Amino acid sequence: MKESFEKRGLTKKSENISDWYNDVVLRADLCDYTDVKGSMIIKPYAYLIWENIQKELDKMFKEDNIQNCYFPMLIPMSLIKKEKEHVEGFAPELLTVDKIGDEKLNDPLVLRPTSETIMYKAFSNWVQGYRDLPIKINQWCNVFRAEKRTYPFLRTAEFLWQEGHCAFANNEDNLQMVFKALNWYKDIYEKYLGISVYIGLKSQSEKFAGAKNTYSIEIVMPNGKALQAGTSHDLSDNFSKAFNVNFLDEKGKKQFAFQSSFGLSTRSIAAIILAHGDDSGLIMPPNVAPIQVVILPIIKKAQNETNRDVVDYANSLNKKLKDKGIRTFIDNDDIHSLGYKINEWELKGVPIRIEIGNNEVENNMVRIVRRDDFVKQDVAIDGLENTIKNILENIQSGLFTKSEKLKLEKTKDTDNYSDFKKFIEEGNFVRSYFCEDKECENKIKEETKAVTRCLEFDQMNDDGVEGKCIYCGKRSKHKWLFGKSY
Amino acid sequence: MKESFEKRGLTKKSENISDWYNDVVLRADLCDYTDVKGSMIIKPYAYLIWENIQKELDKMFKEDNIQNCYFPMLIPMSLIKKEKEHVEGFAPELLTVDKIGDEKLNDPLVLRPTSETIMYKAFSNWVQGYRDLPIKINQWCNVFRAEKRTYPFLRTAEFLWQEGHCAFANNEDNLQMVFKALNWYKDIYEKYLGISVYIGLKSQSEKFAGAKNTYSIEIVMPNGKALQAGTSHDLSDNFSKAFNVNFLDEKGKKQFAFQSSFGLSTRSIAAIILAHGDDSGLIMPPNVAPIQVVILPIIKKAQNETNRDVVDYANSLNKKLKDKGIRTFIDNDDIHSLGYKINEWELKGVPIRIEIGNNEVENNMVRIVRRDDFVKQDVAIDGLENTIKNILENIQSGLFTKSEKLKLEKTKDTDNYSDFKKFIEEGNFVRSYFCEDKECENKIKEETKAVTRCLEFDQMNDDGVEGKCIYCGKRSKHKWLFGKSY
Repeated sequence: MKESFEKRGLTKKSENISDWYNDVVLRADLCDYTDVKGSMIIKPYAYLIWENIQKELDKMFKEDNIQNCYFPMLIPMSLIKKEKEHVEGFAPELLTVDKIGDEKLNDPLVLRPTSETIMYKAFSNWVQGYRDLPIKINQWCNVFRAEKRTYPFLRTAEFLWQEGHCAFANNEDNLQMVFKALNWYKDIYEKYLGISVYIGLKSQSEKFAGAKNTYSIEIVMPNGKALQAGTSHDLSDNFSKAFNVNFLDEKGKKQFAFQSSFGLSTRSIAAIILAHGDDSGLIMPPNVAPIQVVILPIIKKAQNETNRDVVDYANSLNKKLKDKGIRTFIDNDDIHSLGYKINEWELKGVPIRIEIGNNEVENNMVRIVRRDDFVKQDVAIDGLENTIKNILENIQSGLFTKSEKLKLEKTKDTDNYSDFKKFIEEGNFVRSYFCEDKECENKIKEETKAVTRCLEFDQMNDDGVEGKCIYCGKRSKHKWLFGKSY
Repeated sequence: MKESFEKRGLTKKSENISDWYNDVVLRADLCDYTDVKGSMIIKPYAYLIWENIQKELDKMFKEDNIQNCYFPMLIPMSLIKKEKEHVEGFAPELLTVDKIGDEKLNDPLVLRPTSETIMYKAFSNWVQGYRDLPIKINQWCNVFRAEKRTYPFLRTAEFLWQEGHCAFANNEDNLQMVFKALNWYKDIYEKYLGISVYIGLKSQSEKFAGAKNTYSIEIVMPNGKALQAGTSHDLSDNFSKAFNVNFLDEKGKKQFAFQSSFGLSTRSIAAIILAHGDDSGLIMPPNVAPIQVVILPIIKKAQNETNRDVVDYANSLNKKLKDKGIRTFIDNDDIHSLGYKINEWELKGVPIRIEIGNNEVENNMVRIVRRDDFVKQDVAIDGLENTIKNILENIQSGLFTKSEKLKLEKTKDTDNYSDFKKFIEEGNFVRSYFCEDKECENKIKEETKAVTRCLEFDQMNDDGVEGKCIYCGKRSKHKWLFGKSY
């Protein structure tokens, strides 16, 4: 049997989360590898997750009058070079087309790593007077960043994302957008994907190349590593000056626009896998689950008489649940054993499994098995829709509670550098005073592999309380979160 | 004022449809140009049209259990070369990445022109036995084809499309899929975009590179030119043999899968523009229109007292229509004159304009103006939702009727080659007996610039009736449609 199709056993998540991850993405049919180094196929089951995330986020965008559009994927290198920090940050990761047919290009075309440059060149044409602002657009697209080490969904040479790009006449409106986007992402993770997150300011060395400030979503993974899972950038007037996005204000004076951009990618799927999965495979949060309920008719080949009843019963239940907007699937496969099928659906993390056999039909019952705790219950078919909805809500909130507990448990506060090192080593986030000097940041990274994740908003206030930098001991205003990057 | 933003007058469609097209795509804010030769920005108004088409088509796919997924955009050149006809057909149009960073690639990566090769390589891993079939997948993505002459939406180096790809255990199921996809496209054009189309078989010289047969949607444009606006390919076992998509059948015998692929692109937006627009701009078919009804409150700045009433009246109407699922927009802009605003909304082709002034408020009326025939009517506000819905349906069906009339008027039957040349010259499709020899086809193309569009299904029957090839006079079984390509 060929490699990618092999039905291999699953490493235990608790034993080796990396191997478990590599196993589960293939075994649960989320992705497959190709001959293209660092790229992957997003298979239908994973793509449905992405479509659900898209639907939810796109609704938020549209309600805020952010308009979808599409810009060319190929960006002239000369445009990329216009914002100095931007090109410095992205240069090592760029893929380029140098010729078309036999024609050698003087200005190579870059496969977009992000679209600030090409979009803001257009903005400079679109914006003349203050009435042309704000501009609020978004695109759902593929982007490219050459990466040395790649992992499915976590880091691939090509990935899918949305990138929102805005321009405002003043700084206040722009900042409001920056935080609004960040909070949309927080809601997506917490309310929709059931993952508790940190949000805050990135350090100057970790910010987006070309931004004034970057704010991010940071997730504590079960091994204590950090996943940056969404970013919102205050670009201030850095790009508007480089690209001449200027306008005449109400008094006829030339002003540069204030700009923001924000992105969330298919990396969010990695977050779901890592945050919730267990030794049996994925656990899909019901809100985003492609299939919320799988129905398994238990068909015994010897008893042909009664099978019809089981199948009819299952079909009618399926219809009833679908009509209530529950995403269901009937597994009528008659080749594999029940045990095999149960394993497969557990692997795919479907939140609820319903088993129906002769006994259930006779008693107008169904057997419900939850994926999160494997608890089984026999429930009357009358009013089942509401029971199911309640269990789905319960699983959803349970996953979030568990995620929040893990986040808090794996976040340690300390003023002591040897504890800091120990906590990082053991797999934790650490919250410590930090002087915000680049040199200290580099030293900490060298010695512990931990980097600043973010400065949380509730740590940001200048309340006069000070402490000593965890590394150099200098007086420091704020406690920062540190962690090892995924 | 910068070039792309210039408010220039509109060429008359009847006078010069090419200039009109170039004017209207910019003026109606559908697209914009960039520094990247042959690429364009799809602006929000056009992107909304694309989203509506996506929604409709995606629903059809999902109901048929076609699953969305995503494959890498970069395809190794060695894969592209595996199917001989395929690479010959696409070679001149390929864009490639030759190095990543400083590393020169031995096997250059091609920016996908279409995804048969990379997908079917994966299929060969996924398919082992007959139970692994059928595979029915689709992806919504960007594709690249270097083109010498480009036109917005009609032909650009990068465009957006969907590509469906299937594999079946037998030829019958595969052919059924080929025709099903073609009929989905027909429905999209006829029922949704209000455009009457021809469907049929492409000639062997005009088919997709690597297919056994290609079936297509062909549209007669107002100037008599032909737009190929969707294709469905019977790939037979051509690709499955090249990529080893084989399986063991029920008897344990190795078989090659039968395959099909089908695609519809943002070129469909060009079809809408060209088919329905008039000298005042676009006319959007209500089913796909981003805005179905624009509400214009007529606010006289001198009469502040009553303006509030007009605005409230407009807002409450807007809410009422939105609640009924009608896509509305209130134009509260108080800078431009009413005349200017009317022009702009006509340019954007919004099917219905509602004008509300003091007079309308006092009499519980609104003034409705249709975009298709400019007919005005004063209508009571009671029950307006149904009136609006009826008018929208009426506009939709009226556009289709007009499109069908044009198609039939501009399709000429002839047995006489000098008439053939005259009809083509005058801007028509011509239906004539044709021997199906490549040489005749080339000669006709040389002499008239017309190529075979398709062999319609109702001309396909072998009823014994024969005629003489319009060019060489040889006995010919079928009448083919000819026309000049857009």
